[in-house]
Amino acid sequence: MAKPAFCSDYMEGAHPSILAKLQEINFQKIGGYGLDPICAAAKEKIRAACEAPGADVHFLIGGTQTNATVIDALLHSYQGVIAAESGHIACHEAGAIEFGGHKVLAVPAENGKLTAAAIEAVLTRYDLDETREHTVMPGMVYISQPTEYGTLYSLEELTAISQLCRARNIALYADGARLAYGLGSPENTVSLPDMARLCDVFYIGGTKCGALFGEAVVVPDPARLPHFFTIIKQHGALLAKGWLLGVQFDALFTDGLYEKLGKEAVRQALRIQAALKEKGVPLWFETPTNQVFCVVEDIEVPRFDAITENGYWGRTDNTHTILRFATSWATTQEEVDELIRLLDRL
Amino acid sequence: MAKPAFCSDYMEGAHPSILAKLQEINFQKIGGYGLDPICAAAKEKIRAACEAPGADVHFLIGGTQTNATVIDALLHSYQGVIAAESGHIACHEAGAIEFGGHKVLAVPAENGKLTAAAIEAVLTRYDLDETREHTVMPGMVYISQPTEYGTLYSLEELTAISQLCRARNIALYADGARLAYGLGSPENTVSLPDMARLCDVFYIGGTKCGALFGEAVVVPDPARLPHFFTIIKQHGALLAKGWLLGVQFDALFTDGLYEKLGKEAVRQALRIQAALKEKGVPLWFETPTNQVFCVVEDIEVPRFDAITENGYWGRTDNTHTILRFATSWATTQEEVDELIRLLDRL
Amino acid sequence: MAKPAFCSDYMEGAHPSILAKLQEINFQKIGGYGLDPICAAAKEKIRAACEAPGADVHFLIGGTQTNATVIDALLHSYQGVIAAESGHIACHEAGAIEFGGHKVLAVPAENGKLTAAAIEAVLTRYDLDETREHTVMPGMVYISQPTEYGTLYSLEELTAISQLCRARNIALYADGARLAYGLGSPENTVSLPDMARLCDVFYIGGTKCGALFGEAVVVPDPARLPHFFTIIKQHGALLAKGWLLGVQFDALFTDGLYEKLGKEAVRQALRIQAALKEKGVPLWFETPTNQVFCVVEDIEVPRFDAITENGYWGRTDNTHTILRFATSWATTQEEVDELIRLLDRL
Amino acid sequence: MAKPAFCSDYMEGAHPSILAKLQEINFQKIGGYGLDPICAAAKEKIRAACEAPGADVHFLIGGTQTNATVIDALLHSYQGVIAAESGHIACHEAGAIEFGGHKVLAVPAENGKLTAAAIEAVLTRYDLDETREHTVMPGMVYISQPTEYGTLYSLEELTAISQLCRARNIALYADGARLAYGLGSPENTVSLPDMARLCDVFYIGGTKCGALFGEAVVVPDPARLPHFFTIIKQHGALLAKGWLLGVQFDALFTDGLYEKLGKEAVRQALRIQAALKEKGVPLWFETPTNQVFCVVEDIEVPRFDAITENGYWGRTDNTHTILRFATSWATTQEEVDELIRLLDRL
Repeated sequence: MAKPAFCSDYMEGAHPSILAKLQEINFQKIGGYGLDPICAAAKEKIRAACEAPGADVHFLIGGTQTNATVIDALLHSYQGVIAAESGHIACHEAGAIEFGGHKVLAVPAENGKLTAAAIEAVLTRYDLDETREHTVMPGMVYISQPTEYGTLYSLEELTAISQLCRARNIALYADGARLAYGLGSPENTVSLPDMARLCDVFYIGGTKCGALFGEAVVVPDPARLPHFFTIIKQHGALLAKGWLLGVQFDALFTDGLYEKLGKEAVRQALRIQAALKEKGVPLWFETPTNQVFCVVEDIEVPRFDAITENGYWGRTDNTHTILRFATSWATTQEEVDELIRLLDRL
Repeated sequence: MAKPAFCSDYMEGAHPSILAKLQEINFQKIGGYGLDPICAAAKEKIRAACEAPGADVHFLIGGTQTNATVIDALLHSYQGVIAAESGHIACHEAGAIEFGGHKVLAVPAENGKLTAAAIEAVLTRYDLDETREHTVMPGMVYISQPTEYGTLYSLEELTAISQLCRARNIALYADGARLAYGLGSPENTVSLPDMARLCDVFYIGGTKCGALFGEAVVVPDPARLPHFFTIIKQHGALLAKGWLLGVQFDALFTDGLYEKLGKEAVRQALRIQAALKEKGVPLWFETPTNQVFCVVEDIEVPRFDAITENGYWGRTDNTHTILRFATSWATTQEEVDELIRLLDRL
Repeated sequence: MAKPAFCSDYMEGAHPSILAKLQEINFQKIGGYGLDPICAAAKEKIRAACEAPGADVHFLIGGTQTNATVIDALLHSYQGVIAAESGHIACHEAGAIEFGGHKVLAVPAENGKLTAAAIEAVLTRYDLDETREHTVMPGMVYISQPTEYGTLYSLEELTAISQLCRARNIALYADGARLAYGLGSPENTVSLPDMARLCDVFYIGGTKCGALFGEAVVVPDPARLPHFFTIIKQHGALLAKGWLLGVQFDALFTDGLYEKLGKEAVRQALRIQAALKEKGVPLWFETPTNQVFCVVEDIEVPRFDAITENGYWGRTDNTHTILRFATSWATTQEEVDELIRLLDRL
Repeated sequence: MAKPAFCSDYMEGAHPSILAKLQEINFQKIGGYGLDPICAAAKEKIRAACEAPGADVHFLIGGTQTNATVIDALLHSYQGVIAAESGHIACHEAGAIEFGGHKVLAVPAENGKLTAAAIEAVLTRYDLDETREHTVMPGMVYISQPTEYGTLYSLEELTAISQLCRARNIALYADGARLAYGLGSPENTVSLPDMARLCDVFYIGGTKCGALFGEAVVVPDPARLPHFFTIIKQHGALLAKGWLLGVQFDALFTDGLYEKLGKEAVRQALRIQAALKEKGVPLWFETPTNQVFCVVEDIEVPRFDAITENGYWGRTDNTHTILRFATSWATTQEEVDELIRLLDRL
């Protein structure tokens, strides 16, 4: 058996039901650009899951692309986007937001999470700044649910942020690259209908959550993003065979598969987290989703690497390394059993 | 039997060998972003097919995305791209090139083809213009092989354009969205090694040529596109599961599948073209690849629509419509037989 | 006496009243960025001249900068600007509009003028195009009054264009780099109040019309350009000592100076045009403003160059050159007398 | 007598020798775009002052415009610019750098100054980051001399930064909006030739230093900025009557005027600083140039405002305000005498 691998949550293909469906319809002739019955059905299922019957749903391909396209659509040219310093758009998108002409207004955050208070401080500083018209106006807020650090906004926290945004008339956008692992967490208090109610735009991640690729952008009030189709095209984000995305989201939103996949992955991650704690390996901090972070002495790192593939996440000081274990929809009970067995022997 | 459909060449999924491979490796754990053994093998096969052992190959997702990313990488901020007025970047990419800050210097073209003479005229006009530093400098040439109109550059024509570009020190880039249907044409004189020898960058289209999606950018001299990986990421064009693209191009470049698929599609298109001629339906002009254009009186259009799904391509005058029949790698002998049979009855 | 020079209309400094005023207030301490009483007074005079009491007026520095800033402010990211092929933004701004992310939708024009019919054709083509969402949406119309070729839109023509734009809900913007020479033409039928009534935005050119530099952007309905101050700053177009612009436009809009300067320059240009005709030198076409174009055999060009500095404007065929004579607010009766005298001797 | 005013250093017009010259040549006919003998002479004087005979000099209009244009010219599309968090480009240019597609990589700084160590940390973090190709590559360093806080880089500090940049092959660019006040400081150790030797590009500020407006960009090695003229035009930064800038810089670089103006302004600022100290008003920190910062209790602010116009600069805590006194080339001995007299009475 190969070393159990937990490097990332985008290492496997797709849920078997997706491949089966692709196989089944491979030679059907289907119209392009997402304007087909398969996409229509998938969108309808997402609307139902979000309890947002009037929502627009758009299928894009990947996270950076989705973030750049949505943010460009939401902002005026003179506006920037508030994000956590650790937000994906702030540090791991190669300047895609700036390529579109917008500044990322990065805010220090704890464990990846923004707070309504921190956002309000930015807005108030802007409002009170006599030279504000010489600066970038905050035009929207970007959050990730779960965050890049595996943490979750509670319903209370998200509500506070949403209320603030609405009071200040700026858009709230949530990056749900790992949303299944948020929805599937025992600690989660934010449902899809909550997301649809509280966010102006959010996306339901497929790439890391059971699809080959794909992200479903949900726009509860379609008037918020006029001509979004053209903006998608202009960003090079329009898939010719849009039905490939429709097939995938249709499968994920049939019989609650999306949440089921998330739930099982989180269950396995929590098993790993518990095993590390039991073993006395300090956690960086406790997380409720599919990413587990522990802190090990540098000299211990090779011992971990010998038994499992994990992800290097950074350092806490000169002698300690943060390791990440990410489970996914494809992680098996056996893989985690094996990891725990190997950890026990360390 | 449904009406035989020839609306476009991106209506079906992928060659069965691709789906089979995806099925086979679905639960293998594979590293992200195209830095995996499957992509490496696919790239090696493409290098071999191009007889370009030193080339870089990058896998992107779709045509507009690829064009915007490559053009942005090739041009300086003060340069524009010469293209045929009918070039895809000039009219059907929703301003993606301008979104990246560059002007498309559109040149009238015949049947979609630029000529070395027309390009030289643009360059000379620029050189002779005393106010040229107040204008956009032509920094590269964009062509499509085959063109958007199904026509082909001959080896002689492409060589002339390439020599001109090199003499004037500007890049030559070829959009090969339908390259299989060029390579598979009985009239074709430009091989993949010719493309690699004559172009600075070109892409081998997958989306329309047997893949689910994907385009393979070939850079014969990798020094031409430094940090292209980051540029891809910045454009939102980096697929997390890059191996999905590797699998597809590996299959297409195994046992000459890519050219075989192209050849069969063109054979079927030429059967349609011959049938139309025989039937006395005037062609818009004769094409050697997978797109066939005929001109019918407006009042005849419903009769064509009744027997087959085709593509509306525009008008030649107030009373005549251009119809397009596009075959693809998935078009069957039977479908074309049926179309011909129905045409006979018109 | 030096050869009389008519190369361009931006060769001299400013009307003496401007320099006198600059001298007078040189050591006054005045607040920055145009938020000072001098600018306020100048804006008020412009509003009065335009009979647009609710208008916003913004002072920018030069034409290309003004065009890029206004167009960026008027368009959504997915829109382009309709312009004559010969429009300044289409050919002599080094891609400044594309740098801001927008396509110039160039339309063939006669003597520099667009027509409502030509604009309507673009809009209708867009509306009828089934693939329009894959193309750049026309979002505004750019015209120049007078045009780059010295021609003028009549009130009837401008009204037709304005009505069309309003019916189609797109903005109309007029580049008035040489507006004084339009207003000062005996053929002119379009007043400043007409401009304010018919355009969404236009600018009153100072650089070529009596100022050292500067253009006054008039926005009859300020709600049309929210946060324009910040957009100006973002474009690097905000002058620290904005009062320098206020001083100049205050002088130009005191006692009708702006129109007076224009009128005299046009009077001199028409004298040149008449002299050329009398002399039998063919005009390229007749113009009613400050630019006169004649067509001379190439072998005659040195004889013209020997007696006067003029502007090379292009060629009509292989053996004929277009020469331009541009007068300005600073052109004197004596200079034109001398030119006519020299022409007579040719 | 009005209250002595020290709000900013761009409140007055220009040194009288400039206005006199403008008056003198007002009706000369001079060619456009800076390609005239006046600009040529001014450039030659700047080259001489910089001991950089091979340098290119370009005249632009204002600081934000200059920064945006130079940075766009120096960076590749995938690169960002390292700057102090308090750098003008990071906070007071309304996102002009991001509008050009580039991220500002903001670094915490003390009193406005970057250190070689802080820059090296950014570069090393980038180099060591395994995901660096997913991030923005640092492509240049932006510093201000003097800084926005009136502090100065010493020759040693600037040399260290320059050596680092050259070792790492990234460009060093210095914003010299207030350079006269650096050169004129008794503490200054960095000469113009040092700037030319150590920076890849820098600009000599005119707007705040004796000119009506204008900044002179110095490019010691012109090959560093190919086609910079077109880039200037594309940014809307090309002044039609470029000679207006030439006149001003010619005057400022005749008989050492530029440094003389700076020296006198700094002398007056240091008098203010000394008076504040003597009076027991705490300084925010001591500065060697034309900006003086003191910290006063909020309840004291109205008393200061009653005697002088100063600039609000921010707060140190909930009960203390930072006030700025900025002198300029136009500040007189009498104004400062009066301020000191009034301070004494506080």
